Amino acid sequence: MTSEQYSNLDLINLVDSFPSAATHPISHAERLGELSILAHNTRTLGYILPSVAAVLKDTKLSGTHWGFAGKVITLTGETAEERSENIRETAQSWRENGIFGILRGWRNELYTVYSPKGHEYFKLERSACPLFGVVHLTAYTTSPLKIWVPRRNPAKPTYGGLLDNTVAGGISSGMSVFETLVKESEEEASFPGSLIREKAKAVGHVSYFYQRMETAGGEEGLLQPEVQYVYDLEVGNDVIPKPCDDEVQDFHLMDVEQVRKAVSLVRGKYDIYIVLLDFFIRHGIITPENEPDYLEIGSRLHRLLEFPTW
Amino acid sequence: MTSEQYSNLDLINLVDSFPSAATHPISHAERLGELSILAHNTRTLGYILPSVAAVLKDTKLSGTHWGFAGKVITLTGETAEERSENIRETAQSWRENGIFGILRGWRNELYTVYSPKGHEYFKLERSACPLFGVVHLTAYTTSPLKIWVPRRNPAKPTYGGLLDNTVAGGISSGMSVFETLVKESEEEASFPGSLIREKAKAVGHVSYFYQRMETAGGEEGLLQPEVQYVYDLEVGNDVIPKPCDDEVQDFHLMDVEQVRKAVSLVRGKYDIYIVLLDFFIRHGIITPENEPDYLEIGSRLHRLLEFPTW
Repeated sequence: MTSEQYSNLDLINLVDSFPSAATHPISHAERLGELSILAHNTRTLGYILPSVAAVLKDTKLSGTHWGFAGKVITLTGETAEERSENIRETAQSWRENGIFGILRGWRNELYTVYSPKGHEYFKLERSACPLFGVVHLTAYTTSPLKIWVPRRNPAKPTYGGLLDNTVAGGISSGMSVFETLVKESEEEASFPGSLIREKAKAVGHVSYFYQRMETAGGEEGLLQPEVQYVYDLEVGNDVIPKPCDDEVQDFHLMDVEQVRKAVSLVRGKYDIYIVLLDFFIRHGIITPENEPDYLEIGSRLHRLLEFPTW
Repeated sequence: MTSEQYSNLDLINLVDSFPSAATHPISHAERLGELSILAHNTRTLGYILPSVAAVLKDTKLSGTHWGFAGKVITLTGETAEERSENIRETAQSWRENGIFGILRGWRNELYTVYSPKGHEYFKLERSACPLFGVVHLTAYTTSPLKIWVPRRNPAKPTYGGLLDNTVAGGISSGMSVFETLVKESEEEASFPGSLIREKAKAVGHVSYFYQRMETAGGEEGLLQPEVQYVYDLEVGNDVIPKPCDDEVQDFHLMDVEQVRKAVSLVRGKYDIYIVLLDFFIRHGIITPENEPDYLEIGSRLHRLLEFPTW
């Protein structure tokens, strides 16, 4: 990637970087051949890199907490609680021994991983999810026409000073999608809950399969299939977002051209622009006439993931 | 399928019925094992049923017009014109000999099939190539949100009397997406071109891989991967669609509940509801709270197809 300006498809390629079984069956099969599979019965819950599988087999806890059968790895435990405790002990011991750099970003926040039937299969510390390649859910808002774009706090260890989506946050275990949206809107933009409940409109989701780059922090190549629930929030001139927690430095009201330029020039946290690409398609800004890769972009923004959700 | 009322996911399953390589790798591999591949170099242009491949090998023209190497079938000809002529002669001879029922619906309308690089690879009579690119337009009025729904002419041989999308039409060879939209809007709903050019807004596409059912006419199981470019048209009370050609009997202004009920009860031309499901998701009518299969539906409405487009 030497060009100064990224096309929309370049951004998709950076973010939806795991090969597709439909369009690239050979690369997909080769990639899959290198990975171990975290499985329940015959269903895939996640993919595990060889480097992580090797550490897992070598962990003291592997005999009691994990099962190994060729490429297939299983987490032992009869109930969701037992499995959550087993994987927590494993991740905790890696953290204490400084084994994976990504665990230095430990959040004390649990994500839920679902069984093939959509029930809770186990809970897992958020920062450890890419080690097991399990799905991550995010709720977002975007404000039409002009877009309120926050600049991240320059003091943040990840992507300090870069632009971001208006509001976004991971869905913690036990929270619904909409509750998460209300909570994050208050925390990140000082939007009152009543505004979100009245005006935020569900408009679909985006999903993609990210192989983490070095700039994401932690080990390169960790697997991060992601789902983001997307909401539009149309606000008048009287509604102005204000930073509340320390995530955001300030908000800028940018027109579409300013945002598109920022998107195509950016270096770094590419995945934050995925929601904007979907916004541009839904609002007739990216069209079949001005975007030669319209169909591929629209489909890859909604990748069908092979992992269960609820 | 015994239930009287179809869920949204039931409708998706009826229409996006070819197994997915990502979520159902075993069924996908088995299905692929049965099929021949129409290919150019190493890229798949289409899949061919065993019943069609057998006829193709048996056709007098097979020696000059077609190449066979195991599962891989190629169309001979150095240029798009030569390939178009070779496939036209093949389809024409089948039509004359009454070999495939689906060719009784011959339209004298050409569709373009694209090369892996997005150039024209050949043109093919519409009825013979359930392949690519049909525009579907949904027109709706706001406050309250209502949708203009046409009832198809009961005298039509296919799906007579059933509800349909406001305006829809296949993209003929040489026509752009937007030109097709303008033309079909005039022909099917008497919408003036100026209204469409001013107000129709591109809002994305839907794509899926349909295995034709008996009710679709012609041979059962024929493979029909489809792409539909979707536009929203917001109109005031002064704009009323009127039938112009013989496709439509009359238009009804239906509220969302009436349309949803019609969708969930319908028998027959399921694919016309795909565009409405996407509309319901984009407009916050189907939400993560009221639709347990929200993610699967949203992803399968945008299936990444393994065939080239432009």
